[in-house]
This record gives sequence, structure tokens and C-alpha cells, in this order.
Amino acid sequence: MDTLEAIRTRRSIRKFEGRAVPRELLERILRAAMSAPSAMDEQSWRFVVVADAGLLRRVAEFHPGAEAAKQCAAGILVCHDPSLEKLAGYWVQDLSAATQNILLAAHALGLGACWIGAHPVATFEGGFKDLLGLPEGHVPVAFVALGYPAEVIPARDTYLADRVKWLG
Amino acid sequence: MDTLEAIRTRRSIRKFEGRAVPRELLERILRAAMSAPSAMDEQSWRFVVVADAGLLRRVAEFHPGAEAAKQCAAGILVCHDPSLEKLAGYWVQDLSAATQNILLAAHALGLGACWIGAHPVATFEGGFKDLLGLPEGHVPVAFVALGYPAEVIPARDTYLADRVKWLG
Repeated sequence: MDTLEAIRTRRSIRKFEGRAVPRELLERILRAAMSAPSAMDEQSWRFVVVADAGLLRRVAEFHPGAEAAKQCAAGILVCHDPSLEKLAGYWVQDLSAATQNILLAAHALGLGACWIGAHPVATFEGGFKDLLGLPEGHVPVAFVALGYPAEVIPARDTYLADRVKWLG
Repeated sequence: MDTLEAIRTRRSIRKFEGRAVPRELLERILRAAMSAPSAMDEQSWRFVVVADAGLLRRVAEFHPGAEAAKQCAAGILVCHDPSLEKLAGYWVQDLSAATQNILLAAHALGLGACWIGAHPVATFEGGFKDLLGLPEGHVPVAFVALGYPAEVIPARDTYLADRVKWLG
């Protein structure tokens, strides 16, 4: 899929078919995530891939915005590992760039995806830590629900000319 | 350009040709930025496009990491407008997703780009605010230097299998 087309047509998908996402596709998505830029190339990310339906369904128990986790076939938790940080304060941006790559790669591969926020809400961070047994200090930033889409959401035009100031 | 190829081959470009970036391309890049997802679809972003060489060169005066601004033909400052926020705390992630879209769109259009961090470093935020006359309260998150690339940086493999934990 063309890059600009993927960016333009990607929408948050919350309804999924039951079939599993092949591990090969998940690896391609993780490769895309790790291609993101990061401050001083610190790449302070770690990923937990969840394909167990029981675990996935429990996300919605502590996260009211995690409707997509009720049906998804897989999920990727994007976590920050402070021991890998080189330049203080940029890790949320780095990991968010990686998360956006996940969404775009999934869409380009024919999957649907939905970004579910974790950081900086303590109950969401704690929920993921407890559910997935994260190592001490790791910070869950975002969880992406993934699967073959069971809904079609049309592209929309979100360009707002009045959000842009032109100088020079 | 194919989406996965764009994600894989995008590198930070810091050397640029002198020629200007057509406004039509900058508008396509801004459209890509505004296609990013955001918490509750808040889209709290504002953009300042800088095409004035005098302004661009001054970025490196307050930002030691802004080498790319010394040569770039244009820059886009991605700012948060708190008056547009709906769900507290997610704006850094939203704007970072928009910034990653800028990098990928630029690369797909044959341009080079480099992400220069602003938030959360007070001197960088203040430098951009003063230089570009931002409205009170707006927060500069990232500045992207843009231009026709004058260097070729090969793609690299950044996949690290030990950063992934598989569950289920």
C-alpha cells in the first residue's frame, strides 16, 4: 500500500474477525515499530505481544477505553525501559513514533488496529503491569489492539487550514 | 512508495540541497500529519511552517541538537494547543504520531527530514516560542527539518528479537 494512502486511510478499528494474526505478520509489524527514530537513537522500547484471548479480554476490566481489546486477536504493549534511556525526557515521543509505525504497518498489511493509551494514567499503567507481569521500572505507554477488521471505516479529511501558520 | 518500505528506509537526514520545498508538498505533509490518531480525536495540534532561511538558521543558536536546521529548506514546528485538549495527558503521544507521519510522508515524497526535539526541555520550548512568536500557552513538541536530501543514509536493520516478549 502506498505510504500517503496508508496514512490517509488508516482509521481506528475496534471490531475484529475471530481468526488469529500469523506470527510472521506480527514480526513485520514489530520490525516497523523498531524502525522508528528515537532521541540519540536510544530505542528504549520493549514490546509484549499478547495473543491469548483470556489476557486480551481482561484489558477492558481496568481500562474503560479498551473496547477494541474485547474482540481483538492480538495486542502489542509498547513499553519504555528506563535503563536504555540516553537523553532524558524524549521517550514518550520515541515510543509514540514506534506506535504510529505499528498502526500504519498493520493497516498496510490488511489488519485493523486501535491505539489504547496507557501512560500517563496510573491505573492503566498499573493494570498492564499486573496483567502482563512487566519487570520493575518498565513503563507501558500504549497498547495496540490488532486483528483482521470486521468493520470498514471510511477515510475522512481531517486537514484544517486554520491550524497552520506559514512563515517566510 | 510502499508503506513498509518507507518505514524501513526512512533515516534522519541532516544535509539538504538549497532548493525550496514546494508549498504543495508541504501541504501534503501537513495533511499526513493531521491524519494521525489522537485521544478522543482531540487533534490538539497546531503547525508553524518556516521557510525563511534566516529564521531556520537561528534554531541552532538555542538548540545544540538542531544541526539539520542549519541547511534545511523548510521546517515544521508541531505545537500543542491546550485549549483543544479533551483527555488529559495524551497530547505528547498524539503530536508524536503526527510528527512520525510527517517524517514518513516527507520520505515518501522524496524529501529528507530530521526530528528535532523541543518538549520537555524548557530552553528548547522557549527558544521556539520566542523565535516564532507562538501564542501564550502553546507548547512546541517537535520541529522537523525538511528539504531535498543531499546525503544518502542506507536503511539498517534495527530489529532486536530480545526486545519482544511473546505471550499466548
